[in-house]
Amino acid sequence: MNFASDNWAGVHPAIAQRLLDVSSGFSAPYGTSVFDRNIEQRFNELFEREVAVYFVSTGTAANSLALAAVNRPGGVSFCHREAHMLEDECGAPEFFTHGARLAPVDGDNGKINPQNLKAEIERFPSNFIHAGQPMAISITQATEIGTLYQPSEIDRIAEIAKSYGLPLHMDGARFANALVALDLSPAEMTWKRGVDIVSFGATKNGCWCAEALVFMNPELAKDLPFIRKRAAQLLSKSRFIAAQFDAYLKDGLWLEMAAYANTMAQRLQAGIVSSKRARLAWVAESNEVFAILDKTDMEQLQNQGAVFYEWNPPRAKAGLVNEQEVLVRLVTSFATEADQVDRFISLLG
Amino acid sequence: MNFASDNWAGVHPAIAQRLLDVSSGFSAPYGTSVFDRNIEQRFNELFEREVAVYFVSTGTAANSLALAAVNRPGGVSFCHREAHMLEDECGAPEFFTHGARLAPVDGDNGKINPQNLKAEIERFPSNFIHAGQPMAISITQATEIGTLYQPSEIDRIAEIAKSYGLPLHMDGARFANALVALDLSPAEMTWKRGVDIVSFGATKNGCWCAEALVFMNPELAKDLPFIRKRAAQLLSKSRFIAAQFDAYLKDGLWLEMAAYANTMAQRLQAGIVSSKRARLAWVAESNEVFAILDKTDMEQLQNQGAVFYEWNPPRAKAGLVNEQEVLVRLVTSFATEADQVDRFISLLG
Amino acid sequence: MNFASDNWAGVHPAIAQRLLDVSSGFSAPYGTSVFDRNIEQRFNELFEREVAVYFVSTGTAANSLALAAVNRPGGVSFCHREAHMLEDECGAPEFFTHGARLAPVDGDNGKINPQNLKAEIERFPSNFIHAGQPMAISITQATEIGTLYQPSEIDRIAEIAKSYGLPLHMDGARFANALVALDLSPAEMTWKRGVDIVSFGATKNGCWCAEALVFMNPELAKDLPFIRKRAAQLLSKSRFIAAQFDAYLKDGLWLEMAAYANTMAQRLQAGIVSSKRARLAWVAESNEVFAILDKTDMEQLQNQGAVFYEWNPPRAKAGLVNEQEVLVRLVTSFATEADQVDRFISLLG
Amino acid sequence: MNFASDNWAGVHPAIAQRLLDVSSGFSAPYGTSVFDRNIEQRFNELFEREVAVYFVSTGTAANSLALAAVNRPGGVSFCHREAHMLEDECGAPEFFTHGARLAPVDGDNGKINPQNLKAEIERFPSNFIHAGQPMAISITQATEIGTLYQPSEIDRIAEIAKSYGLPLHMDGARFANALVALDLSPAEMTWKRGVDIVSFGATKNGCWCAEALVFMNPELAKDLPFIRKRAAQLLSKSRFIAAQFDAYLKDGLWLEMAAYANTMAQRLQAGIVSSKRARLAWVAESNEVFAILDKTDMEQLQNQGAVFYEWNPPRAKAGLVNEQEVLVRLVTSFATEADQVDRFISLLG
Repeated sequence: MNFASDNWAGVHPAIAQRLLDVSSGFSAPYGTSVFDRNIEQRFNELFEREVAVYFVSTGTAANSLALAAVNRPGGVSFCHREAHMLEDECGAPEFFTHGARLAPVDGDNGKINPQNLKAEIERFPSNFIHAGQPMAISITQATEIGTLYQPSEIDRIAEIAKSYGLPLHMDGARFANALVALDLSPAEMTWKRGVDIVSFGATKNGCWCAEALVFMNPELAKDLPFIRKRAAQLLSKSRFIAAQFDAYLKDGLWLEMAAYANTMAQRLQAGIVSSKRARLAWVAESNEVFAILDKTDMEQLQNQGAVFYEWNPPRAKAGLVNEQEVLVRLVTSFATEADQVDRFISLLG
Repeated sequence: MNFASDNWAGVHPAIAQRLLDVSSGFSAPYGTSVFDRNIEQRFNELFEREVAVYFVSTGTAANSLALAAVNRPGGVSFCHREAHMLEDECGAPEFFTHGARLAPVDGDNGKINPQNLKAEIERFPSNFIHAGQPMAISITQATEIGTLYQPSEIDRIAEIAKSYGLPLHMDGARFANALVALDLSPAEMTWKRGVDIVSFGATKNGCWCAEALVFMNPELAKDLPFIRKRAAQLLSKSRFIAAQFDAYLKDGLWLEMAAYANTMAQRLQAGIVSSKRARLAWVAESNEVFAILDKTDMEQLQNQGAVFYEWNPPRAKAGLVNEQEVLVRLVTSFATEADQVDRFISLLG
Repeated sequence: MNFASDNWAGVHPAIAQRLLDVSSGFSAPYGTSVFDRNIEQRFNELFEREVAVYFVSTGTAANSLALAAVNRPGGVSFCHREAHMLEDECGAPEFFTHGARLAPVDGDNGKINPQNLKAEIERFPSNFIHAGQPMAISITQATEIGTLYQPSEIDRIAEIAKSYGLPLHMDGARFANALVALDLSPAEMTWKRGVDIVSFGATKNGCWCAEALVFMNPELAKDLPFIRKRAAQLLSKSRFIAAQFDAYLKDGLWLEMAAYANTMAQRLQAGIVSSKRARLAWVAESNEVFAILDKTDMEQLQNQGAVFYEWNPPRAKAGLVNEQEVLVRLVTSFATEADQVDRFISLLG
Repeated sequence: MNFASDNWAGVHPAIAQRLLDVSSGFSAPYGTSVFDRNIEQRFNELFEREVAVYFVSTGTAANSLALAAVNRPGGVSFCHREAHMLEDECGAPEFFTHGARLAPVDGDNGKINPQNLKAEIERFPSNFIHAGQPMAISITQATEIGTLYQPSEIDRIAEIAKSYGLPLHMDGARFANALVALDLSPAEMTWKRGVDIVSFGATKNGCWCAEALVFMNPELAKDLPFIRKRAAQLLSKSRFIAAQFDAYLKDGLWLEMAAYANTMAQRLQAGIVSSKRARLAWVAESNEVFAILDKTDMEQLQNQGAVFYEWNPPRAKAGLVNEQEVLVRLVTSFATEADQVDRFISLLG
């Protein structure tokens, strides 16, 4: 009964096997081999246009280098107050941009509120150098709290980005979960709506270590080869990331895993809704379910073998939980087993 | 006949298999699992003392974070003029240290000359802030050109480091190759001689992506957890690096692979020495052989299927080659096959 | 009728004269002359202890280097949401600390609320590297909105700083104005209450360009000579800053100017309180008065020759002004003339 | 008899007086006043084109921000091995460019040798990201050792810069001394030859603190307002720098001072040439004279009141001095008195 996080899971057998398959023989390093190039080419097909793709080793690297690519002195990037890049990356985005700031934007359901976004951007008028200058907007899809930007919501953010001449980044650590939940193509969820850069995460969805930074307009990425190498993110045996993506993208495995994880989340959610001891914090739209239960119940469940954590940010809990209660996060993945979900639900009572 | 570089090789079957073995099940992320901790513990045994170990994804990351850990404003680190960190890391060490400088030190055979080192350090007197301040010394073992610091040579550098109060770093991208060639224990090649920090590389010696930054004195690394996370080098599924090290260090596999690679280099070297068309540039002491041959011979060999490159730095070639000749590098690894070496030698004539 | 800002004023005649007096002759550069040393010594007397003093050219430099001196990777500094370093320094503090973050803390009257401060610090538990680590606390005295931390309020912040092992910085761009308003000695307003580092500003109080970074514990500043030089803030003819401080600190000129500016602010305030067309936004405690008036009145006053600006931050205005009104800032200095204040008041009606 | 450095001098009376003259009254801060704008306009006339001008407080700031303006990830700037930015700025250029490197280029007489420059640039082929990428070329005029790039020599460097698409920066800490020695106009010494950015120094030539960063093509400087502010180099009472430039540039005062300083250097040089106890190290072309004398003679002269220093860089002395001798630097300025020069010469014997 492990619902701690999707990065607690291991790797899908097909991906592990592919890695084994490419383990022998010689291959040009640093992403220059034909094999690497072919996988990069796969991204062009995936996004239905010529994109620039850079493999990196962590999602934090992808997010940080995305901002580094559009860096401006005194720059300010706008993201949701609960965004991973703001809350969980130890200042990496600021470090890789030499101190450019992340400005938190509030919004319900883990999503940037467009009005708030505009108001925040307006705090940086172009003739007032003291405050700094707007640099980028970043949205997370699926969000940190398992919700989704609907296509029209992305449109609205993109429209604002465009009106201020700002690049729009999407932190897609759970890109696949969002995609299948919304039944969109990668193109439809990104550049067709105005997204310029995607942190295309695969690690949380069944890979070991496979993150791709994808630029819809390769021109925007022209310094990325140097930025990535200087960031110590150009892997010599880059082939092992390519091989993971090879298996990941083959025959829709990635979408299958994401759909499965989402289904497990729905199953969990249904159990919580019908449970007497827990209630839903908000509706789960991808592979994360947030529930409210009594502290004693949480402890009991954990003692019974369930692995999951309290969701801590004070803002998240405000007005939702009383003193006896906790807000908890339950994450599913390709590795979640249905009977474990069912057991958890039955324990919930 | 691939002698292009040891990072052209894939991964040793035992390591690939181990990765497959740990691919299922759940495990705490970010290096906090018992499995990760156990592998870290393995390093304590390896070095015969309690060390602080941090897994990272590239050798450039290891080198850069080693310097970041001992960073000083206006800092200057001393390394050999041909050091990888100076020549091949796109300024990553400078980036991660916010602009601290790498000062090249000359020396024969790819090794820092102690006299030159002292003279360079002396250029930064402690009361003269304009020049900056000494920060660290870094040696590469085995060196970029396949030679080795003898124990007494490390002693001499360490003595200088100590006399100036500077930490001594060892870039061990080819640590194992040096170790077996010198028949020393890890402790004897490092802290027993005064080395403080080691970039313990395994990628070039049969892993996919396994680099460890090892601090002999954990106190020196107390900020490293934050430095690494901020550098986007804390992998969520850190288990996959741990698993590689698990197989790598088990039953001496790492030393076996290194010894094999070195043997192949000796076999190549013997062939070159006895060849009529090539001659040795200098004596190979680990798994890299440098030879001099006619350009036309190089092209002919390449056309016959041999993969290797010219070694370009002009300084390396000065006085060694004439206009018709080229200096080439031949690298061996666990994956080098003896019959391919023999075929190359026979082609050499 | 210029109330735009205290940095619109020129320089006090005694300071201008002193600069002229030292303009001839030769003197050792880079702060090494006896003259510079003597002025530094003056700071020891001023603070009643041996301090480390570094002259820099801007308040932004002082604030930024203060944080740089206590920098930590993934570091987070806590300051008031309206702090100058957060709102008006174009990201310089983040830049000079390689991306360390400024975390805004709310509080009434421009002052950090201790409860909020604790809550913010608690968001960075020491065993959770993902969020980063607390690094420093910074308070502004007098605050950006002309209010003052009472001694007991500094005590309370310092107690929190101490309990978390964090250095406490005071942005004293208007240090003198606060000092005379509170009738404290420099020691009483700083280290006797637990303040570790002071940005000792003189530019706004009658100098051209004279800012000093003062460390109560010189040990904390041991890298500052390199940090300052690397920051391009070590002036060759440092004597001209020293000369300004010489005149500034002589015979209490600095306190005299600050007291005068404060008196002018009180005079303005009294006029506003008794005015029919304006009302006070909050009580002025140093040399800045914030008033609320109708937009049309503001424009009329400006047309009549008064120079002052709307105070823009939306948070500042929330709940204070209606649609027809504006919140304006009126700043006084040594150069403010009483009859100009009176004229302004009479125009206010 | 002070020949220690031109930054030991104070400030020219006309400049000190101008500063006094503008010390009263109110003026818009941060360089936005009409007065500031007028002085900036003066630079347009001076350079015979519309330039972008940014006042900063140190020459190190000017050099560092020049490079920051053209910064590239993994960037490498080429300068002479003895350049001030490389030898005397504590790594500031690297810091402000987030770790971009300074590559030393050798050349006789303190000047970059074009052949060596090309060879160094060629070490960074555009398709080899590991080494980094060329970013800028910087020459110093007059050089650190008092020599001058002749117009044709600037042409040659500029041609190389252009052929590689690199901006050409001129460190003009002693711009005026070079200008009058070569009898060129500012335009002729800069953009008409291909120089893109100038660190226009005035501090060493009779100002307190007046450095201007001048971009021949304002487009290249479009981010400079943010870069400067973020670098803590935007002075609130910017008027005091403007006032210095006002007096400095008025009626050719700056050229007059520089010509005088050069004349004093020639007078010193003539004395050294005819002296029995000293000999010239190389021909002085601006306001620095380098001489070789016995250590005992140096000490004797210093005891007799002459202030000057040994010139330390070992490379500078190689082959020039014997064991008993020292290489010394003698610097003149507007403040050097002819009778002090004569006294020094007579003491030389």
